[in-house]
Amino acid sequence: MAPSPANEAQCRIIDDVEFGENVFVSPFVNLYGCTVGDGSRIGPFVEIQRGATIGARCKVQSHTFVCEATIEDEVFVGHGVIFVNDKYPRAATTDGQLQGAQDWQLLDTVVQRGASVGSGALILGGIRIGAGATVGAGAVVTRDVASDAVVAGVPARSTAWRSGQA
Amino acid sequence: MAPSPANEAQCRIIDDVEFGENVFVSPFVNLYGCTVGDGSRIGPFVEIQRGATIGARCKVQSHTFVCEATIEDEVFVGHGVIFVNDKYPRAATTDGQLQGAQDWQLLDTVVQRGASVGSGALILGGIRIGAGATVGAGAVVTRDVASDAVVAGVPARSTAWRSGQA
Amino acid sequence: MAPSPANEAQCRIIDDVEFGENVFVSPFVNLYGCTVGDGSRIGPFVEIQRGATIGARCKVQSHTFVCEATIEDEVFVGHGVIFVNDKYPRAATTDGQLQGAQDWQLLDTVVQRGASVGSGALILGGIRIGAGATVGAGAVVTRDVASDAVVAGVPARSTAWRSGQA
Repeated sequence: MAPSPANEAQCRIIDDVEFGENVFVSPFVNLYGCTVGDGSRIGPFVEIQRGATIGARCKVQSHTFVCEATIEDEVFVGHGVIFVNDKYPRAATTDGQLQGAQDWQLLDTVVQRGASVGSGALILGGIRIGAGATVGAGAVVTRDVASDAVVAGVPARSTAWRSGQA
Repeated sequence: MAPSPANEAQCRIIDDVEFGENVFVSPFVNLYGCTVGDGSRIGPFVEIQRGATIGARCKVQSHTFVCEATIEDEVFVGHGVIFVNDKYPRAATTDGQLQGAQDWQLLDTVVQRGASVGSGALILGGIRIGAGATVGAGAVVTRDVASDAVVAGVPARSTAWRSGQA
Repeated sequence: MAPSPANEAQCRIIDDVEFGENVFVSPFVNLYGCTVGDGSRIGPFVEIQRGATIGARCKVQSHTFVCEATIEDEVFVGHGVIFVNDKYPRAATTDGQLQGAQDWQLLDTVVQRGASVGSGALILGGIRIGAGATVGAGAVVTRDVASDAVVAGVPARSTAWRSGQA
């Protein structure tokens, strides 16, 4: 086959997004109702939903889903990371209607400054990941992570502290 | 950069799909040879393969892959869920040809009415997930899940029953 | 809704890629600076980065991310597989600049001939997966895998040997 070059401009869906300076956005993204701070990079195949805030100088790598969450400055979010926004998701209400935004409790998720979320990690709703913390690749984070802590595993457990910490 | 708005119509690949009424399909989907029932929602970056059946009032969230499987009505499928369709995948046959559909045994996977499959879950081929069951985020489901059961972990184990069940 | 057929040619980003004969590339891919050998198939929602080499008669399934790595001939890479290219990722350098390629140590990852990497697996940087080895679905591979070994779990452990092996 002879693949054709794509028209890059047509491969991004961007609706009601507030960008800082020098933001780089890859092709194949679906961003709406969110903000992205100065100098941040958004990889391909990323969805960032309404209400999400991405700080300055962040990296959000490919295949990642960010729901309504606050990502502070200089946070690394790896490939294929999923921020979950509903603890008990169901498709439909008890009377058979498709659930809408009024039917679930949105949870306040925060990743603090300089933290690193490894590729393939899952962050459950309402979690706070402390400043400088490291979440290992593939971890399922079910409770808060202290600043500068290192967690890994399913569910994620603390495994070490960053070098240089007391 | 100044991202351009995309032409949404050009960001969906839809081939030989039977849609019910009021189906919502996000941009960046690759759907072919499948059916999607009334009122269901399909998120972005989703592939649904030939032979798959999605029932009515289902949600299939972003980054999910559905192979030939039956998803009954009112099922929630989270973000980044993968339905695996081959237990022993190999790229090539023993004589060096790329494997085709005739070279593997397709497995009959069913998710029954009202079940919820958490984000990042992997469902191996041939699994039956019972009605109303809950699969936790990040679970790897390697055997059948009973109706109304709650499973989590790698591999997934039963952890509780839904409230309200005897 | 009435989904429109997409213009498939406009849904691929392909830049500086060397293709062999009879390569099949799905829509919604982001490929750059890599090589793909004869007869290989690349699924949708796949990113393959600069410096990656995909051999002949390989399958790279949907939602997979391949960084600078060597995938030899007849390798199967499942859906949602992530090759991680940095052991200690951070968004920014200590002086607050966004990290660039010069700020991390790239690791030499190799998947040898005929191996199979299950869906949802994570392969950490610098790993060698031996010829004919099998990585189970959802495994997090943190150390080398011997030829013909079968590994699974988080982190991945050896669980069996392929039938036919001594």
